[in-house]
Amino acid sequence: MQPDRLSLTFSALADPTRRAILARLVRGEATVTELAKPFDMSGPAISKHLKVLENAGLITRGREAQWRPCKLETVALKNVDEWLEHYRALWEARFDRLDEYLHGLQGKKPKEKKRARKK
Amino acid sequence: MQPDRLSLTFSALADPTRRAILARLVRGEATVTELAKPFDMSGPAISKHLKVLENAGLITRGREAQWRPCKLETVALKNVDEWLEHYRALWEARFDRLDEYLHGLQGKKPKEKKRARKK
Repeated sequence: MQPDRLSLTFSALADPTRRAILARLVRGEATVTELAKPFDMSGPAISKHLKVLENAGLITRGREAQWRPCKLETVALKNVDEWLEHYRALWEARFDRLDEYLHGLQGKKPKEKKRARKK
Repeated sequence: MQPDRLSLTFSALADPTRRAILARLVRGEATVTELAKPFDMSGPAISKHLKVLENAGLITRGREAQWRPCKLETVALKNVDEWLEHYRALWEARFDRLDEYLHGLQGKKPKEKKRARKK
């Protein structure tokens, strides 16, 4: 079974070297040689990482045979952002519930009844 | 080498069943049996996924031997959100650059020179 798009993206991001490559590409396009430099890695090792990133749609590469600059693509990252949105709402809702609870304490004090029954 | 925290999180999220488990836990705590139901999966198969999620800090589990309810933890997801922030700025910056470019066109019209040369 072929992994779904979002799983491919998360899997590609689960590596510090690949995340560092993306961070470098924020500054602009770069060749394999330029990308390999800061990592003290061989060209083939970097190429392997680039293939994973390309397969996940996180980067695209130029068509020129020798000079194939890598370019960051933001669509896949936006999909992660949209997926996260659901959970962002959750942690914001937790703050709202805490707020409601604190307001409740000032009014009805619902916990008192339970404590009274135990006596 | 032990993978870093963020790599562990991304790796755990790179599976549709594990993401579906997290989506279920948004509605509240659940036991392994409750989580296994919608997936038509065995308890041990679900337990394996839960271990990956727990190891990545995405969920915690209760202490009770039999009833060990799973609870969603948002800290690891917030770390993903913070990591994304850097890239969010990038796609917003691209809009700004486009805006600058369009303003530039109204002023200097730099492309006209090039076209004139071709004639």
